[in-house]
Amino acid sequence: MNIPSYPSRLLETAVNEFAKLPGVGRKTALRFVLHLLRQEKGESAMLGESILELIRNVRYCHSCNNISDTETCSICSDSSRQHHQVCVVENIRDILAIENTQQYRGVYHVLGGIISPMDGIGPSDLNIRSLEEKLSAGRVNEIILALSTTMEGDTTNFYLYRKFSSYPVKITILARGVSIGDELEFTDEVTLGRSILNRTPYIIPK
Amino acid sequence: MNIPSYPSRLLETAVNEFAKLPGVGRKTALRFVLHLLRQEKGESAMLGESILELIRNVRYCHSCNNISDTETCSICSDSSRQHHQVCVVENIRDILAIENTQQYRGVYHVLGGIISPMDGIGPSDLNIRSLEEKLSAGRVNEIILALSTTMEGDTTNFYLYRKFSSYPVKITILARGVSIGDELEFTDEVTLGRSILNRTPYIIPK
Repeated sequence: MNIPSYPSRLLETAVNEFAKLPGVGRKTALRFVLHLLRQEKGESAMLGESILELIRNVRYCHSCNNISDTETCSICSDSSRQHHQVCVVENIRDILAIENTQQYRGVYHVLGGIISPMDGIGPSDLNIRSLEEKLSAGRVNEIILALSTTMEGDTTNFYLYRKFSSYPVKITILARGVSIGDELEFTDEVTLGRSILNRTPYIIPK
Repeated sequence: MNIPSYPSRLLETAVNEFAKLPGVGRKTALRFVLHLLRQEKGESAMLGESILELIRNVRYCHSCNNISDTETCSICSDSSRQHHQVCVVENIRDILAIENTQQYRGVYHVLGGIISPMDGIGPSDLNIRSLEEKLSAGRVNEIILALSTTMEGDTTNFYLYRKFSSYPVKITILARGVSIGDELEFTDEVTLGRSILNRTPYIIPK
């Protein structure tokens, strides 16, 4: 398939820019652009303006690196949360996922990525130093490692564990085990093996 | 699934705007926005700016309604094309598709939609009057109906045929038949029936 030549340079530029988004090809990009042209102008301009406003004014919480409108994000500035309990996550999507469970009342620390030699991302590219500062200041007594269960996630977990094991802090990790709703016969053997090793006392569900 | 509350109003606005695009949900929208935030600022701003520039400066060809940077689009101002042959299409995506075949050397007329009572789109919402003016002026001797082979497309074809049959103009329609590469046994019976009725003389392929 050769790339069709667009009848307008403005259209072509917009299509090219949309096609840079993850998972968006040129056909989808053209569909987005034609949708914007079909809509009322003010409505469509809002997308462009919201992008520019976000990029120009976005701020990151000085404590946890979460995206925030203020210097300290709403989670870090919430005095009802446990500030000595820090959940280490890769990005803000993970914060949204954990907040959605309504099971966690501590605070977060966003690394901004995970160690991935294949992508050229090393420990120095992540927000690790600011986490270490919190530990040095003695403001933390538990770190919960909540990274992906991939090789990169495991590498990062191991790196953080080695780095922080000298501090008087409890280092925990999310439980790995059989997913709720899964059938045993279809659970992969590594997960099933871990779930036997890490078995927990049976508690009658409420 | 309840909608998670975003840590930043700017982020939320951008996600909401992206989620208005066709086929984009809130999760995909968040992925787009985080991608823009991860990128270099100038790079991401280009998307926002290209949208605003397109919306503010977009023009439509005064002759065929195709999107254009100039008053007359590149196709209508190309003197090597057959200006008395007009291909009627729904939108500019169809122009790109037909141009891609490199089989057509006439000009186009973009209706801007098709008659669809379910969506409240009637003949008065389409660019039909300007097509009629071209016919009245005697500048056209063939109209090629190139609309979708859906009920709405057929309705529009019929409407245009009735409206223009009094003019001294040949009205043709794209051939319907078995797709190239299709197996007969999997072709639907309506298409197969049409392809028998509309059979053409066999020509040895070049």
